[in-house]
Amino acid sequence: MRVVIMVLLSLILASCGGKDGDPATAGTVDMQKIYKWKLVTTWPKNYPGLGTAPENFAKKVEAMSGGRIQIKVFGAGQLVPAFEVFDAVSQGTAEIGHGAAYYWTGKSKATGFFTSVPFGLNAQEMNGWLHYGGGLELWRELYSPFNLIPFAGGSTGVQMAGWFNREINSMEDIKGLKMRIPGLGGDVITRAGGVSVTIPGGELYTSMQTGVIDATEWVGPYNDLAFGFHQVAKYYYYPGWHEPGSILELIVNKNAYTSLPADLQAIVEGAARAVNQDMLDEYTARNNSALVELVETHSVDVRKLPDDVIAELRRLSAEVLDELGQDSEISGRIAESVKAFKKQAMEYHAISEEAYYKARKEQ
Amino acid sequence: MRVVIMVLLSLILASCGGKDGDPATAGTVDMQKIYKWKLVTTWPKNYPGLGTAPENFAKKVEAMSGGRIQIKVFGAGQLVPAFEVFDAVSQGTAEIGHGAAYYWTGKSKATGFFTSVPFGLNAQEMNGWLHYGGGLELWRELYSPFNLIPFAGGSTGVQMAGWFNREINSMEDIKGLKMRIPGLGGDVITRAGGVSVTIPGGELYTSMQTGVIDATEWVGPYNDLAFGFHQVAKYYYYPGWHEPGSILELIVNKNAYTSLPADLQAIVEGAARAVNQDMLDEYTARNNSALVELVETHSVDVRKLPDDVIAELRRLSAEVLDELGQDSEISGRIAESVKAFKKQAMEYHAISEEAYYKARKEQ
Repeated sequence: MRVVIMVLLSLILASCGGKDGDPATAGTVDMQKIYKWKLVTTWPKNYPGLGTAPENFAKKVEAMSGGRIQIKVFGAGQLVPAFEVFDAVSQGTAEIGHGAAYYWTGKSKATGFFTSVPFGLNAQEMNGWLHYGGGLELWRELYSPFNLIPFAGGSTGVQMAGWFNREINSMEDIKGLKMRIPGLGGDVITRAGGVSVTIPGGELYTSMQTGVIDATEWVGPYNDLAFGFHQVAKYYYYPGWHEPGSILELIVNKNAYTSLPADLQAIVEGAARAVNQDMLDEYTARNNSALVELVETHSVDVRKLPDDVIAELRRLSAEVLDELGQDSEISGRIAESVKAFKKQAMEYHAISEEAYYKARKEQ
Repeated sequence: MRVVIMVLLSLILASCGGKDGDPATAGTVDMQKIYKWKLVTTWPKNYPGLGTAPENFAKKVEAMSGGRIQIKVFGAGQLVPAFEVFDAVSQGTAEIGHGAAYYWTGKSKATGFFTSVPFGLNAQEMNGWLHYGGGLELWRELYSPFNLIPFAGGSTGVQMAGWFNREINSMEDIKGLKMRIPGLGGDVITRAGGVSVTIPGGELYTSMQTGVIDATEWVGPYNDLAFGFHQVAKYYYYPGWHEPGSILELIVNKNAYTSLPADLQAIVEGAARAVNQDMLDEYTARNNSALVELVETHSVDVRKLPDDVIAELRRLSAEVLDELGQDSEISGRIAESVKAFKKQAMEYHAISEEAYYKARKEQ
């Protein structure tokens, strides 16, 4: 009888799925194992757009996995400070993180390529480059020594040039300007004679209010309104030359990822892709109503950067990118890849997206 | 002893998951049940971009579900003809379909809104409208009487105006033009004195070759090259005023969808969102290299539609959209929703995406 019981048990266990089966076959995955993951972010908890993306990601993963992965989301400072997200996930303090690659230029300068490059690709083009132009492979190669697997985790679209307490009428006005502007855009401002500063989002309002900085870029109307920058700045400049299509990142600890069965890996990947689109959709829908509120309710002075300032920033940006491309072997390959993709994208978008924006308007 | 066995069996079965548990809780879903779905499409099997999206969708769903949903993809004509996809899924002959909403204007004229509207939203804006501007809710309301749940299932970006065997120098050249152009764009061509024809993609080459039609729009360089239109047409016009950001659709039979446990429903939804982005990424990356090949290898004559023709097509498009908005109560609500979103998007994109395209170029 004991033998019969053991056989029965074996059959039943086999049919509900053991640990050694092929994870691609229905019913052979260990459905009992629940993965409890911590997700740390560089954003304040539930901050619109940027901070809601990791929440959405956690919800999607939990729903798609039937609760087999449960992800607790921590805002900046709740488990680790904003700028320790990379290390925390690298070391396994948290299994996953949400932030922006250009926060980690201290680890490798080349990380700057994977958020946004001055005068580089817009959101649509960044996604094309990452997913069908070799960008993601390069990103994964760059992060591999840090025990991290990056995924695109949202996009803001073209950002605004930022909030200024100084009028920008010529390049002279950039000289001595203390501006919060991270990444390669910051290098360009430095080269133009300004002082670029990196400060987490949550401290920007006070920094502007107290005059610690003269200017800050952040994202666009939807996020900028939420932070209340219109209360502490005089001018709102466009276009966002420095971040024309910023991609956020989901970084996953490599050991945590590879320990998942294949179906849960596919769910993490699929949810990242869905959230990547979802964030851009939200920004696209919400930025304009926020702009209307900024202009009509708060009388914000929206200004275009002068053409000659844009031209000079474009020239300096090319210098910065060329130098970055010489920083390391992988930096060179990434720079070449972005450059080649941009040349193609500019040629085709001149007769498609750009030509259409013009055709749509009453002349 | 028998009691002990039964208790053991009960405990084991409970721990591997029964049919009556909460589907959101790990281990309570019926992991044994395999759903075999048929996916019918309006595209030739594996046709680049359009036809690979449903294949990618099927692969993603199968991987994320650990094989619990297995989807077999049928190209146009393999199970049902291209233009019977809507009925086939509505009636349950297939559980899911991939195509374009504007093929179904015979069912309801308002379906035209959900692919692309002449001089309407581009890809980024369509996704913003659908997912954060009320568009998807209206789409689901429109398809509900047909027993269908629509999801956005890919986007081509701005299309090209099309291939012509007649030069377009003025509106006179549109008169009598026999052009394959479905949906609202076709209504505009008809109003301009042309003859709009709807023909499935697979028959277009021969129709152009034999002179059954004088012109055809299809998608853009990547797809157009694959069909070889450069061999049967003299001119390649831009920009695609008629389809500035075409969204493809995944339509799911409502009974099939609601019969899935919650985790598999979430997987279908998540995979659709991922594929929706993936297709645009692929088009963004591949259109330009295809354009280079068309121009440099095949000496294609790429031309811009004259400004006065664009202006007149814009005027006629507004008339067509106004009339469509009066076609039915729901058509009126959809028209209002698109119009309001477009007004907002145009205002914000003038200082963001559009301003950036201009800033990026050497002046």
